[in-house]
Amino acid sequence: MKKGVVVIGGGPAGMVSALTAHRYYPEKDITLIKNVEKGVIPCGIPYMVSSMGNPEENGLSMLPLEKAGIEIIMDEVKKINRKEKSVSTEEGNDFPYEKLVLALGSKPFIPPILGVEKEGIYQIEKEMGYLKKMVATIRKSRNVLVVGGGFIGVEFADEISKIKGTTVYLVEMFPRLLLNSFDLEFGSLVEEKLESEGVKVLTNKRVIEFVGDKRVEKAKFEDGETVDVDCVILGIGSIPNSDLAVESGLDMTKKSGIWVDEYMRTNDPDIFAVGDCALKRDFFTRREVLVMLASTATSEARVAGASLYNLRVVRENKGALGIYSTYVDGLALGSAGLTEGNARKEGFEITIGNFEGIDKHPAALPNANKIKIKLIFSSYSGIIMGGQVAGGESCGELINAIGIAIQKRVSFSELETLQIATHPRLTSAPTKYPIVLAANDAASKMLVKQ
Amino acid sequence: MKKGVVVIGGGPAGMVSALTAHRYYPEKDITLIKNVEKGVIPCGIPYMVSSMGNPEENGLSMLPLEKAGIEIIMDEVKKINRKEKSVSTEEGNDFPYEKLVLALGSKPFIPPILGVEKEGIYQIEKEMGYLKKMVATIRKSRNVLVVGGGFIGVEFADEISKIKGTTVYLVEMFPRLLLNSFDLEFGSLVEEKLESEGVKVLTNKRVIEFVGDKRVEKAKFEDGETVDVDCVILGIGSIPNSDLAVESGLDMTKKSGIWVDEYMRTNDPDIFAVGDCALKRDFFTRREVLVMLASTATSEARVAGASLYNLRVVRENKGALGIYSTYVDGLALGSAGLTEGNARKEGFEITIGNFEGIDKHPAALPNANKIKIKLIFSSYSGIIMGGQVAGGESCGELINAIGIAIQKRVSFSELETLQIATHPRLTSAPTKYPIVLAANDAASKMLVKQ
Repeated sequence: MKKGVVVIGGGPAGMVSALTAHRYYPEKDITLIKNVEKGVIPCGIPYMVSSMGNPEENGLSMLPLEKAGIEIIMDEVKKINRKEKSVSTEEGNDFPYEKLVLALGSKPFIPPILGVEKEGIYQIEKEMGYLKKMVATIRKSRNVLVVGGGFIGVEFADEISKIKGTTVYLVEMFPRLLLNSFDLEFGSLVEEKLESEGVKVLTNKRVIEFVGDKRVEKAKFEDGETVDVDCVILGIGSIPNSDLAVESGLDMTKKSGIWVDEYMRTNDPDIFAVGDCALKRDFFTRREVLVMLASTATSEARVAGASLYNLRVVRENKGALGIYSTYVDGLALGSAGLTEGNARKEGFEITIGNFEGIDKHPAALPNANKIKIKLIFSSYSGIIMGGQVAGGESCGELINAIGIAIQKRVSFSELETLQIATHPRLTSAPTKYPIVLAANDAASKMLVKQ
Repeated sequence: MKKGVVVIGGGPAGMVSALTAHRYYPEKDITLIKNVEKGVIPCGIPYMVSSMGNPEENGLSMLPLEKAGIEIIMDEVKKINRKEKSVSTEEGNDFPYEKLVLALGSKPFIPPILGVEKEGIYQIEKEMGYLKKMVATIRKSRNVLVVGGGFIGVEFADEISKIKGTTVYLVEMFPRLLLNSFDLEFGSLVEEKLESEGVKVLTNKRVIEFVGDKRVEKAKFEDGETVDVDCVILGIGSIPNSDLAVESGLDMTKKSGIWVDEYMRTNDPDIFAVGDCALKRDFFTRREVLVMLASTATSEARVAGASLYNLRVVRENKGALGIYSTYVDGLALGSAGLTEGNARKEGFEITIGNFEGIDKHPAALPNANKIKIKLIFSSYSGIIMGGQVAGGESCGELINAIGIAIQKRVSFSELETLQIATHPRLTSAPTKYPIVLAANDAASKMLVKQ
């Protein structure tokens, strides 16, 4: 049998690993083995409920791989034979490899709630057939309960609220939504928005039991309250899918999956791991963190794919930044790097820059939105460590501009005199550009301190 | 009379100079002298035609200055008395200064065309009264001729095309529109868009005469053709407004106005100059260039305002990048740094990265647009030198992400593994993020070369 690169996993991390390997090592045979017949675009899952008329629109296309001549095998890998350098599958086949990439992904965390196994209760599985059933159930339900106020839960609640006649409850055990990625003043914007859509946001609340015969009929909370439900969505998070790696004796980390170095190499020099199943180090502290985002996973896949046979290009995984955006009924939010809360918890001495403005200029132009920004700087070095934005759709790319600034460790004084493109229909005014004005605000505070 | 900072000029550069000076030197009295009673937001001028119902909506508010306690004087400065450190005005007043900021702006270039002085022919004056008359004339005209295919001309043509029953001609003497900031494949998108709106785009064409009695009635071209016109807009460019500086004996440059150093200081240590009237150096070559953008001007104003009395913060004007965006009927375009054409003209050895995709994911989501990107890298160092984007409104901030990368001299290999925020409703997919994929494309070409 031919040898070359074998990739296990058909999600974004696996796909991009295979495509990058093909680009850097076109002379090698590349095989991708996946165990899900019809995959989906992970971040598109909530939008299968309403925004997409037909959930099938969220299918993950394998076409780019086919075009590149990458062999796609539908099978489940059961064993990695590290000595022989091959993998064995459920269907009894052996695939030898020179280099192996593990893109095993993650699996939904199922909370130990009484009755969690009842019918009508769904977790976020990345498989089309399962999700189509879930969407069909949601669309015909009268009362849907979403468990978990992270971005998956928030996006599901927003989408379900658009179905006429359906009541949606969003339950979060902490005092506010999006706690991990946003400070209070941003999280509360989301809460207000969801409530204005009719979502019943229940914070500081914990489900302790799902009641019903075979099917879920009620959810019972710790405080004794109950609500009637026909359908429950569990959006509480995921855990690395790393059993295969454990069994093959690769070094593991405590909670974030397979140990990898800066080039995504495991302790076996011929095996790489990327995405949700691989160790993430925090961008600032280098400590182990749980970050499960397709954008982080694909970035790692590009590092791995390029580094398989030799480190041709000096590059590195700088650590996971935690950069993402979300959208609730016209309100877009983005977060990159450390929040104020997380920075203080870590012990960083920080200075905050805030600004509120309008995302067009003059404000009288059509579709102008309020825009709100917060930047977090290291007080001592002046370097930007984090940013949060909320406003119209332009926030989707604005957070990426901030993300580049963080990744390049830009200082507040550089941001104050940043050269930017502004346009009446597209951005804030040059005199009131959010990143610049927030850096100004932080600078004023630093001047006072000196 | 009290002394402190005097700023001459009430446009964005003057305003931001005064506000920044106030922030850094709150103990100083600050006076701003302006000669235009009712100023306007410069980049909003085209949008006074259609997008704003009432042109008054484009007024430039002095409120932030008033709030900061900055004195605003309506008068015209006639002389700078450098020995006495004061300025004398038309109304006969003298204002002493410790530090003087010249934010004199630019004036429209009036081409030497026969009959250019006739009624119905307007240039771009940044004054509300004049522009209101211009807008009123446009709105009742049947045939409007716009001279100049730069971004002002393009935006005017787009706005005028929205008036029912009005024909608009856009004349450009070069073979294509937006020649300075976009390569052909981007400029042609604008041409197609305008033509689809009914604009008559006349490239390779030069007006040689405006015919008519007192009022313009016809425009005559070099090739002998004529068209009937009721109104003409001259959008050919501007020249630095630097007479006052010349008369006061400050060092001048050949074409771009008042000579300044990295901190916007003229050769007189107590006089600073910013914005359209001050020397611009190219970001890459340091050569003198003409860049007249409010965003560049305000960036310079922030450098000057902070540096008036001492260089508290180490900062510098890195040279003008030439970064801007434009918008034509739903199509947004951005450009930053060097185009392919300009880079080759300068003699840079470059490698191009291209990508075309969709600005949402999956493409089935509402309001998905095609997006097109081109990045220009130095072949030898791998550093990004320029970028162009075209697509939906997200391009307005996407070009700013590219602009930060250029200003921080990021390499293609860093961009290939950039950590980015992606969201179905807001951005392209993580597997197909435009900046990353264009960097990929450039990388492939560099690998082949080696």
